[in-house]
Amino acid sequence: MKRHTYMQMMSVTEAREIFLSRFELNNMLPPEEISTMVARGRVTAAPVWARRSLPATHQAAVDGFAVLAASTFWATPEQPKSLAVGEEAFPINTGHTIPRGTDAVIIVENSSNPKADLITVDAPVFPWHNVRRIGDDLVGGEMVLPKGMEITPLAQGALLAAGSTRVAVRRLPKVIIIPTGSELESTANLDGDLPSDRPSEFSSVILAGLVTEAGGLPEIKAIVPDNITCLTAVLKKALADADVMIINAGSLAGTGNYIYRAVAKMGEVVVHGVSMMPGKPTLLGLIGGKPVIGIPDYPISAVLSFEQFAAPLIAGLAGKRLVPRPTLMVHPAQNLPSKPGMTEFIRVTLGRVGDKVIASPLPRGEGVIPSLVRPDGLLVVPALSEGLEEDRPVAAELLIASEDIEGALVFLGSHDNIIDLLDTFLKRRDPRLRLSSGHLGNQGGLLSLRQGRAHFSASHLFDPETKTYNTRYILRYLPRLPLKLINLAWRERGLMVAEGNPKNIRTIKDLIRPDVRSVNRQQGAGTRVLLDYLLEKHGLDPSMVQGYEREEKTHMAVAVNVHSGIADVGIGTFSAAKALGLDFIPLTPERYDLVVPESTFNDPRFQILLEVMHSQEYQEAVAALGGYDLKDCGKIFWEQ
Amino acid sequence: MKRHTYMQMMSVTEAREIFLSRFELNNMLPPEEISTMVARGRVTAAPVWARRSLPATHQAAVDGFAVLAASTFWATPEQPKSLAVGEEAFPINTGHTIPRGTDAVIIVENSSNPKADLITVDAPVFPWHNVRRIGDDLVGGEMVLPKGMEITPLAQGALLAAGSTRVAVRRLPKVIIIPTGSELESTANLDGDLPSDRPSEFSSVILAGLVTEAGGLPEIKAIVPDNITCLTAVLKKALADADVMIINAGSLAGTGNYIYRAVAKMGEVVVHGVSMMPGKPTLLGLIGGKPVIGIPDYPISAVLSFEQFAAPLIAGLAGKRLVPRPTLMVHPAQNLPSKPGMTEFIRVTLGRVGDKVIASPLPRGEGVIPSLVRPDGLLVVPALSEGLEEDRPVAAELLIASEDIEGALVFLGSHDNIIDLLDTFLKRRDPRLRLSSGHLGNQGGLLSLRQGRAHFSASHLFDPETKTYNTRYILRYLPRLPLKLINLAWRERGLMVAEGNPKNIRTIKDLIRPDVRSVNRQQGAGTRVLLDYLLEKHGLDPSMVQGYEREEKTHMAVAVNVHSGIADVGIGTFSAAKALGLDFIPLTPERYDLVVPESTFNDPRFQILLEVMHSQEYQEAVAALGGYDLKDCGKIFWEQ
Repeated sequence: MKRHTYMQMMSVTEAREIFLSRFELNNMLPPEEISTMVARGRVTAAPVWARRSLPATHQAAVDGFAVLAASTFWATPEQPKSLAVGEEAFPINTGHTIPRGTDAVIIVENSSNPKADLITVDAPVFPWHNVRRIGDDLVGGEMVLPKGMEITPLAQGALLAAGSTRVAVRRLPKVIIIPTGSELESTANLDGDLPSDRPSEFSSVILAGLVTEAGGLPEIKAIVPDNITCLTAVLKKALADADVMIINAGSLAGTGNYIYRAVAKMGEVVVHGVSMMPGKPTLLGLIGGKPVIGIPDYPISAVLSFEQFAAPLIAGLAGKRLVPRPTLMVHPAQNLPSKPGMTEFIRVTLGRVGDKVIASPLPRGEGVIPSLVRPDGLLVVPALSEGLEEDRPVAAELLIASEDIEGALVFLGSHDNIIDLLDTFLKRRDPRLRLSSGHLGNQGGLLSLRQGRAHFSASHLFDPETKTYNTRYILRYLPRLPLKLINLAWRERGLMVAEGNPKNIRTIKDLIRPDVRSVNRQQGAGTRVLLDYLLEKHGLDPSMVQGYEREEKTHMAVAVNVHSGIADVGIGTFSAAKALGLDFIPLTPERYDLVVPESTFNDPRFQILLEVMHSQEYQEAVAALGGYDLKDCGKIFWEQ
Repeated sequence: MKRHTYMQMMSVTEAREIFLSRFELNNMLPPEEISTMVARGRVTAAPVWARRSLPATHQAAVDGFAVLAASTFWATPEQPKSLAVGEEAFPINTGHTIPRGTDAVIIVENSSNPKADLITVDAPVFPWHNVRRIGDDLVGGEMVLPKGMEITPLAQGALLAAGSTRVAVRRLPKVIIIPTGSELESTANLDGDLPSDRPSEFSSVILAGLVTEAGGLPEIKAIVPDNITCLTAVLKKALADADVMIINAGSLAGTGNYIYRAVAKMGEVVVHGVSMMPGKPTLLGLIGGKPVIGIPDYPISAVLSFEQFAAPLIAGLAGKRLVPRPTLMVHPAQNLPSKPGMTEFIRVTLGRVGDKVIASPLPRGEGVIPSLVRPDGLLVVPALSEGLEEDRPVAAELLIASEDIEGALVFLGSHDNIIDLLDTFLKRRDPRLRLSSGHLGNQGGLLSLRQGRAHFSASHLFDPETKTYNTRYILRYLPRLPLKLINLAWRERGLMVAEGNPKNIRTIKDLIRPDVRSVNRQQGAGTRVLLDYLLEKHGLDPSMVQGYEREEKTHMAVAVNVHSGIADVGIGTFSAAKALGLDFIPLTPERYDLVVPESTFNDPRFQILLEVMHSQEYQEAVAALGGYDLKDCGKIFWEQ
């Protein structure tokens, strides 16, 4: 197999401009006339002019008697004026047309007797008193809505008031989404029960939602197997119906090359490969004059590629304007190197510390799926840049409301799932509050506190000499910062082994058995420090541990090695073992403390966080995860 | 009839807090489980945890052969390594699970022969090369979505990926909208033909759209006649079904009082009357523990009252957060006095002139319906203030994107419908451009230019002495500002008389006939100056004109007087006569000039406006209105 090389790769802006310039977005779709009642969110295809005046006649604004104002001019309480009912004063209800020759409506005390021949007026009224005049609300022929305006609820009301029960709007562009990939299982077939092992296709659902939000009408086709014949047939059929075609997982270099060939054969490939990351393998083309977009399959790539190319196309066809996201100057929590020549998009969480908004990149090691929904903002590293520098201000596109940033406590440090839980229950207690958390590890967290980039951190650094946690490291890194070490939990650390423990591993001593292959964590990791301490404590030589030099950077990676049979045992957490169905042999609990500077401790938001830590609901949720001991949760172990 | 007086009137904030505190918004509605495919926009009722890991097994990321990486470690091009197919190397397709005991996938040149017994490897691969490991994308048990999160397209994808094909969400609050008013005609009965003379009910459609946008599920009931028995019956029925009830046109002091009595009788009135304008007659109460809101009937009042009270209630029940509108400092184009003790909401259009954003209030004289959809921003005058001062900065809530402000040319001056048309065609030419126009009259416009608050103005000031237009006034008001007078149109001015001209009015001289009653414009109006000039020119004494002293402030008001038979004739415009079906006797055309400072003239946006003025499409649209002569359109009559 030969890897496909891209056509000349283009910059994002160039690719978008060249592609969009191929279409007359404003005139491609004929307008359609629809009922005003369902027109909310649509875009007017022509100016709408009022078909009538409102009120269409002079109308009583109250219940009373219509009179000629001039006939009341000399009335006083001393010399009231009597008007003959049916001749000078005409009973009238609100909203009814006043008789010709009258110009005011009065409410009189004796109007309660409808049989009376006369009404008595004791004060003059002025012309048009209590009368809604012709055209007061709307003048016939006046412009109600300009062309190209999105119809809001108020605009719907204005149209109906003006007599336009139907309105000419831009047609919704029909966007046919074609997922490809022989190996994929449709999410339509997923049920709540045990899912199959095949990777599932869900990007089409994401794309369909984005199409709707951009102003289009999505339709998801069945998954197309990876070959040019199938794809060509589906495209041919879609072409009759679609205004836009999106092929998902398409245009990947390598095996996906048949998508490029299919589009090139049926029409024209305009752009293949864009210098953006993620999103590089984007394909932009035309078939039968209609736009076709090949979107990369990885969900984050798919979304970024969609936003850059599909969204402006669809919005343009729909006559909608894409409102650019608001931006804000932020300070990266760490250096973010980037490849020159590529526009890189980095998803971040945001929170304000002092006068800076701190942007923590979503950790790359983190599962991709949850990170889909976590970013607060997007950093764009231009193609000419080599990356962003720690603490150096840069503009971020906001994915949340800017007010929401103020509710965030910035956590940078060693991560644990129970930090995420803290976030959940914090939000539950007060929806304005949340955590912006960055996985910077123990030392990274302490350095961030020193540089004023975080509200608090967490650490589980064991000092084998003093047999204590964290204190020694704080004395080294943060000698002068008043702070408290507040325990969040003791975490169970132990040996992860295959289900059923086939090698019958019981203690740390089993690691040196000749038939036991281990996998280790990297130098500096808290768990590695612990392992080395335990080996030494039991007088075991690391060189006798088979696989001691095989290092992984996360608990999950260690667990994966065990699960796949590459190793028999690895040190790690209960939660990682549980996630992969491994057996777990507890060795020793580890203290996981929050590191909280005094200024944060006095922040009312942090006090609420402390309440959450102590709450029954939080502690029950942590207990349900297993592997945690909360006996000291909230206890201040040390302060300086 | 006795006018109803409100219960103690409350401030907006107080009323909202007292009302909302009566409900446990987060727990009133039970959650419901729905398909993830339709969950976009809904709010999670509980955290969602991943039901599986993704990938669920180690999977090939490419098509190739699964191998144990260690078996390739010593391969070089000089000494390639051969692996036995079926024993050491296993053919595998993308997305399939790699066999136990393998940890990498390689693509080899000779893989094109599937029958071969051996494959040849000429370079080592590392463990996990081309393998998507268990949990790379998602770790089983990990939190996918927190509670209380709005489900975006990305979140939908994350849920499906995590195996959650169904999701527990907050129920949509069912909001029953009950329009009242015996005089009203339902918009559901409106057709495209000649509408009836009865006022139509369309506020319920506006409210339904706003309910949807706030996160609720609206249902519009039939219009209820104005009596307590009918309303009570409808409320009783709605109560079984609704989570929130909105009575529209309700709670008006006066005849609407029965709504207050109905709510008080069936439940409890918590607030009646709020010190806000518009929106004062709001009623907030409970029936059977469920919220009921009486919304004033005037559309602008209805919307403002909805935003203050109904929107936070509905969003709260739905678990959605209302994002506060962005704000911006603006400079009012004129003084805006306000009644102390009332919170006043003033709708404005916005545009930037120099470094100031100018806010022009929508003219109150303007038809109410079109003005529903025109505001760019909202000024809020606090209860303790006596109003806003011209040019003194104040925060405006933005109803448009802040970028849109930059595209606006600020027009302050004497208004004409063909200015609105200019706006329409300007938008058509370039959707980023538009006019922000304020109706300040001739002098107001010239003063705004002097104070740098407008890009351009328009004037039709006739000077009877020199028999020219505008020049003399500019020399007086703007003696030193380099500018041009550019004609937009000559406008037909004439006499408006009843249809068929029953009094046989032919010339200005007919105004002094004893059987002819006139109506006049106010002092200073351009048309008044013209009338006085014409009377003098023909030697006619104004005191001989019956009704000369009866003044109206707009062309439409004059036309309305004629239409209703209060007057036989009034001077005015062709468009006003046409709107009310009056006959029109042309007297003399009037020059309507744009007043354009040099700096504006050189602005590229204004150059586009000039192109629009000269365009065939604009000129045809103006001609279609009737009453305009475009022979000099674009001609520069004078410059200084």
